[in-house]
Amino acid sequence: MIMSWDAFGMRVCRAAGDETEFFESYFEERNEMTNSINLISGSITLGVFWVLLIAAEYTYGQGETTMHPYRLVIQGGAGTISRGQMTPELEKEYTDKLLEALNTGYGILQKNGTSLDAVETVIKILEDSPLFNAGKGAVFTHEGTNELDASIMDGRTLKAGAVAAVKHIKNPISLARLVMEQSAHVMLVGEGAEAFAKGHGVQLVPQEYFYTEKRWQQYLKAKEDEKKDSGAPRKQVAPEDSSQKKHGTVGCVALDKMGNLAAGTSTGGTTNKRFGRVGDSPIIGAGTYADNRTCAVSATGTGEYFIRLAVAHDISAMMEYTGVPLEKAAQTVVMEKLPKIGGDGGVIAIDGHGNIAMPFNTTGMYRAYIDDGGKPVVKIYKE
Amino acid sequence: MIMSWDAFGMRVCRAAGDETEFFESYFEERNEMTNSINLISGSITLGVFWVLLIAAEYTYGQGETTMHPYRLVIQGGAGTISRGQMTPELEKEYTDKLLEALNTGYGILQKNGTSLDAVETVIKILEDSPLFNAGKGAVFTHEGTNELDASIMDGRTLKAGAVAAVKHIKNPISLARLVMEQSAHVMLVGEGAEAFAKGHGVQLVPQEYFYTEKRWQQYLKAKEDEKKDSGAPRKQVAPEDSSQKKHGTVGCVALDKMGNLAAGTSTGGTTNKRFGRVGDSPIIGAGTYADNRTCAVSATGTGEYFIRLAVAHDISAMMEYTGVPLEKAAQTVVMEKLPKIGGDGGVIAIDGHGNIAMPFNTTGMYRAYIDDGGKPVVKIYKE
Repeated sequence: MIMSWDAFGMRVCRAAGDETEFFESYFEERNEMTNSINLISGSITLGVFWVLLIAAEYTYGQGETTMHPYRLVIQGGAGTISRGQMTPELEKEYTDKLLEALNTGYGILQKNGTSLDAVETVIKILEDSPLFNAGKGAVFTHEGTNELDASIMDGRTLKAGAVAAVKHIKNPISLARLVMEQSAHVMLVGEGAEAFAKGHGVQLVPQEYFYTEKRWQQYLKAKEDEKKDSGAPRKQVAPEDSSQKKHGTVGCVALDKMGNLAAGTSTGGTTNKRFGRVGDSPIIGAGTYADNRTCAVSATGTGEYFIRLAVAHDISAMMEYTGVPLEKAAQTVVMEKLPKIGGDGGVIAIDGHGNIAMPFNTTGMYRAYIDDGGKPVVKIYKE
Repeated sequence: MIMSWDAFGMRVCRAAGDETEFFESYFEERNEMTNSINLISGSITLGVFWVLLIAAEYTYGQGETTMHPYRLVIQGGAGTISRGQMTPELEKEYTDKLLEALNTGYGILQKNGTSLDAVETVIKILEDSPLFNAGKGAVFTHEGTNELDASIMDGRTLKAGAVAAVKHIKNPISLARLVMEQSAHVMLVGEGAEAFAKGHGVQLVPQEYFYTEKRWQQYLKAKEDEKKDSGAPRKQVAPEDSSQKKHGTVGCVALDKMGNLAAGTSTGGTTNKRFGRVGDSPIIGAGTYADNRTCAVSATGTGEYFIRLAVAHDISAMMEYTGVPLEKAAQTVVMEKLPKIGGDGGVIAIDGHGNIAMPFNTTGMYRAYIDDGGKPVVKIYKE
């Protein structure tokens, strides 16, 4: 899409970013718009098109030709992460991988790429790394299998895609995007989602692909602990217990030069999970939300609480309805509303001006972002 | 719970309804509160307890001894429902069943039952009826199977339960409630959800239980239509197409005498659905939401659009953040925001004062409610 606009240069990119008002088509498909443009191009002269462009800029009093600021934020899970548990080598591994993902995503945005492309690419890198609980490196379920969830949302169109409980998808975030772009649906689960993937030429991977020694040992330990507990009176496992483990997810939110927001989240769930449990990561509104008018959010934490508060949508809604800035909305939901019901974790969020927020109520959250000076920053612990 | 309070009469019921402020325990469990009360009762005299009660009423300036108004609303799906398509006999069948469910639910509330009990019982009646696309009477998937989704939410605690893609559960709404009350999770899907059900003594039913001749014929016709289309160039099936079919769901929202809200929704999805598609019905925030501070909502329509707008949570959030009344919030989301992105359907909603709203942007929505005079009302078409 961007390529086809190159002939018009930066000025046209600006108009593309403002198509919201320009064509009054905020809620319509980019494809439809592209078709409209092609029609116009074919039937009227380039000169008339320029007049339209200038008229649009005049109408909306936005004569500047600068592009939107572009930026992205990444998360790799929140939880009990302390310096004491971490070796310098492991810290460097996390930092290097987060930096690699961050720089790759930023590079996409710099080259006029879309926020959706940046989000998908960043998350694929993190899914492919065994360090994070998503894709390769996913934790094991109670049955010793791996079941993955992911979702993605386009802030320009409010289109979204999600998959849950898939077992043979190397990059669930890409399948979520395929669902968004190539199906009439938002959410596909289990074998059905994999059948859809196959039908669209996605190569399935065997379960063994997801095996990592570290996760397998975590799984064996969880089973062992469960066995020890089984002699004691059967107690209700409170979700609070899981706050002692890392809430493994990966996520990315981005704003591109056209002013479009996108958000995505991917996870392998929680170690030893049972009963086809689905957390907040694939739930649009809970783990992921994006709306150009407000913000893009990706969440990580005790998923059940994030679903009950519709955390990602709540941050967006607070901005929409009260006009508070992103930082205030994200802080209120994560640091006040969530703890009130016992939920822990955090979010990464970005608004249409490039402001970012990364509140979390745990001891740590893997996170990376481009700072105001354009410099990449990686952080793990509370400051 | 209610029974144990009976000795104190209505005045104590009122206090139970106001435990939010009284014990500053809005987000805590009713069970915990019951324990506290028992402790208090055991260790201090009844007189002291009365003093506490009176003090609480004085503090919050709500000295009236009346109970909350109680009320409920039911929906049985929205879509293209016109008088021309309907026979008087069929209309009577729908009306009778909706009335039966309504009166049963209302009876529960009258007898001091909880809104959760009313919601679950009402939805079970509709699930057990072959008239509605939920439980018995669910539509067939592309594979000729039945896959059911449901969710329920407690406005007092913000606890929620949901199941998706279950095939052998007679009453998915009851399983959703079991997930809410007997697991640490919110959402369970597929075989895992059924394993959880079995583990809790829920008897599974064979797929044949869900067979109805009407749905089977609809399925065969959908397959036939698909076959006819297959000669033509393969077109992307737009979600808009489904607006031509009935958006089959059932749902209920209720306010009980204690001032607690609850919402629930159940569905068999869409005829000939593929790929483990999950709509909005089991998505907390999209198809179902309840929060004592705002409202309880159950949605029905083209699910994908309801997910993208987080419709049920959005209505609640608009009330929370702008202070608009329920009617305005529900109207804005259903009649303005939804049509803008192409979504059709409707919601039923109730607030903490017993105000109700039932906006829909289709030609009809099966709905039933108790009017201001306490009279049951059933409606199908637009007025």
